Amino acid sequence: MKPRFRDNIEAMVGYTPGEQPQGVKLIKLNTNENPYPPSPKVMEAVRAAAAETLRLYPDPMSTALRQKAAEVYGLDVSQVLAGNGSDDLLTMLVRAFVAEGGKVATTRPTYTLYRVLAEIQGASCDEILLGEGRSLPVEALVSSGPDLVFVANPNAPTGAPCEVDALRELASRLECPLVIDEAYVDFSRTNALQLARELENVVVLRTFSKSFSLAGLRVGLAFASARVIEGLVKVKDSYNLDRVAQAAAVAALRDMAWMESNAAKIRDTRARLTEALAGLGFTVEPSESNFVLASVAEPPAAALKARLQERGILVRYFDEDGLRDSLRITVGTDEEIDELLKELASILG
Amino acid sequence: MKPRFRDNIEAMVGYTPGEQPQGVKLIKLNTNENPYPPSPKVMEAVRAAAAETLRLYPDPMSTALRQKAAEVYGLDVSQVLAGNGSDDLLTMLVRAFVAEGGKVATTRPTYTLYRVLAEIQGASCDEILLGEGRSLPVEALVSSGPDLVFVANPNAPTGAPCEVDALRELASRLECPLVIDEAYVDFSRTNALQLARELENVVVLRTFSKSFSLAGLRVGLAFASARVIEGLVKVKDSYNLDRVAQAAAVAALRDMAWMESNAAKIRDTRARLTEALAGLGFTVEPSESNFVLASVAEPPAAALKARLQERGILVRYFDEDGLRDSLRITVGTDEEIDELLKELASILG
Repeated sequence: MKPRFRDNIEAMVGYTPGEQPQGVKLIKLNTNENPYPPSPKVMEAVRAAAAETLRLYPDPMSTALRQKAAEVYGLDVSQVLAGNGSDDLLTMLVRAFVAEGGKVATTRPTYTLYRVLAEIQGASCDEILLGEGRSLPVEALVSSGPDLVFVANPNAPTGAPCEVDALRELASRLECPLVIDEAYVDFSRTNALQLARELENVVVLRTFSKSFSLAGLRVGLAFASARVIEGLVKVKDSYNLDRVAQAAAVAALRDMAWMESNAAKIRDTRARLTEALAGLGFTVEPSESNFVLASVAEPPAAALKARLQERGILVRYFDEDGLRDSLRITVGTDEEIDELLKELASILG
Repeated sequence: MKPRFRDNIEAMVGYTPGEQPQGVKLIKLNTNENPYPPSPKVMEAVRAAAAETLRLYPDPMSTALRQKAAEVYGLDVSQVLAGNGSDDLLTMLVRAFVAEGGKVATTRPTYTLYRVLAEIQGASCDEILLGEGRSLPVEALVSSGPDLVFVANPNAPTGAPCEVDALRELASRLECPLVIDEAYVDFSRTNALQLARELENVVVLRTFSKSFSLAGLRVGLAFASARVIEGLVKVKDSYNLDRVAQAAAVAALRDMAWMESNAAKIRDTRARLTEALAGLGFTVEPSESNFVLASVAEPPAAALKARLQERGILVRYFDEDGLRDSLRITVGTDEEIDELLKELASILG
C-alpha cells in the first residue's frame, strides 16, 4: 500500500532553511551565522569529548549545562531546559501546548518556522501585522484567542527589538504561554529575560547558534517557571543533546567574555554597514541583531540577490508579502562587509 | 495565569530512561550500551570537527552521512534519513502518520517509548501480547486498525528476533506503515532491511548507539521508500544533526570491521552469560541482542536488582505486567560479566 500521511502533512510544504552550500568558497551572509570562531575553550571541550565515554548515553537532562546556565543567567536550575538547538525547544512548546485544531499566534513578518510548526501540529497560525514602527500588536494577539504565542525579540528578519513593557503587558493579558524567542538578543541593548522570572506563562529562548558561534552544534536554552519546564520534559526526546554539545555549551558559558567581545565587534560592523547601505540608496531598518533588513527600489531585490550570488556573496531573500523589496544581510567580518559593499556599489553604480 | 498543557500532556507521566549515574564508578549493565569504545577513526573525526566551522550550520540533510549509509546498506540516498538518535526518527514517524485521536499499535512487551510517543500525540496505543514463542501477533496487529505499527527486531526487552516472513506478511496486510526498529540487529543473525527495499510501507530504523558504541552522540538512520522519506523531512527539525555527529557517523560507517568485531565479542559473551545464568537457576530467553532477559523465582527480581546495585552493578528492572519476575542484563565485557556472575552466585548462594 501507498502510505498515507496525515492530511496536514500532505498539504504542507515544510520549512526551507537558508542555503548551506557545501565545499564552495563564498561570503555567506544569508543564515545569520557568526563570522568569528567559537571560543578556544569550546574547541578544547570538543576535543576532550572524543573519548571512550562516547559509548555511554549522555545525561538526559543536560544537568551540568543547565546548572551553569542557571548561574550565568540568574535563575534556578529547575527553570532551565536545554534543547537540540532552539528549534527543538520550539517544537516541544507546540507539542505541549497546542492541540490539533488549536491555534498559534505570532507577528508578521517573523521567523517562518513558527507557522510551519503549527502546520505540523495540524493547528492554525494567526500572523498579525506589526504595528507602527514595528510595534507589538498586543491587542490583536490577545484577541486572536491563541493556545501559544511566539514573539521574536529582536524580531527576524526586521532586527527590531520589542519593548519589554509591551511584552509584559502581552503576557499578563494572555490566557496562554508567551514564548519570547531571543535568538539574537546578545546583539541587542535590551532583553526580556526578567519576564521569565516574573511571570509563570513566559518562556524565554536563547541559542548558542548566533552570539556563541556554535550553529554547527545545535544547543538552545529555555527559561521558564519550573512547572512549565516539567511539562516540556514530558515531550522532550529522552537524550536530546549529545555529550559533545553538552560539554561544548558548558565551555562556551565559561567564556562569556569571548562571546561578548565578538558581539561588540558585530554591533560596530552593523553600524558601519547600515550607514553605507543608506549611502547606496537602501532603506535600512534600525537593527538590534546580527543582520540588517535593507530595501531597495531598483533593481528588484530578488534580482539583486541573484547578482550578488554570481559574485560569490550569499544574502537572504524572502518571497513573502511585505518582504519582496528587501534583502536580509548578515553582519559578517569587516572584510566581508567591505567586499559586499564594493560589489553592491558596482552593481548599482 | 497558570499555563495549561494539553490534556494528554497533563495526564501523561513521560518516558523514564534507564539510570545514568554521573561520576560514579559502576558496572553499568542497565541501558544496553556497548562495553567497547568507538572506532579510533570516530575519535579522529570528532577531534577534527573541533574547528572554526562549528560557527556554521550543519548540512540540514546530513548528505554525506546519508550517501555513505546508502552505499553501505545498498539503498538509494533518497531512501535514507538521518535522525538525532532513532528516538528523533520515531518522533517524526508518529507526527507524520498519527493524528490526534489516532492509533498506534505495537507488541507487548516492547520498547515502552512507542506508547509514550502515542500519548504525546494524543493518540491511543494498542499493545498486543506476543504469541507462542514470542511470535508476532500479525492478525491482531492488522485488525486493531492502526495508523502506524512499531515492531522491534530483535525485540526489547526480550531479545527475541522476528521472522522476516512474518514481518513481510504483516506489512503486506497493513493499511499503514510498519516501522521495524532494528536498534539491536547487528547482534542478530537476521535482519529485515530487505523489506524497506521491497515494500513501500516499511520503514527500517538503525542506530549508532548500540553496535557502533556511540550512544553519546545521538545518530539514527531510517530506510524507507523515497516518498516516505520526503514526507518525514517535512516534520524534521531543520538542523537535527550537529556537525560533529554527522562527521562521526560517517567515520563509523567507514570502519564497519570495528563494529563487527565488537558485535562478535558481545555475541560470544552473551552465549557464556546465558549458560551461566541458567546454571544459577535463571530462566533466560534466547537473545539475538546485546542483552538478555532472565527471570528468577526467588528472590524477587526488584530485590535482586537492588542488591546488585548495592554491590555496584546496575541492571534494568521493569515494573510492568509480565516482566516483574525478570531482569534485563546488558552484555558487558567478559570481566564485567564475570563480576556480575560472582555477585549473583554470592547473593543466591
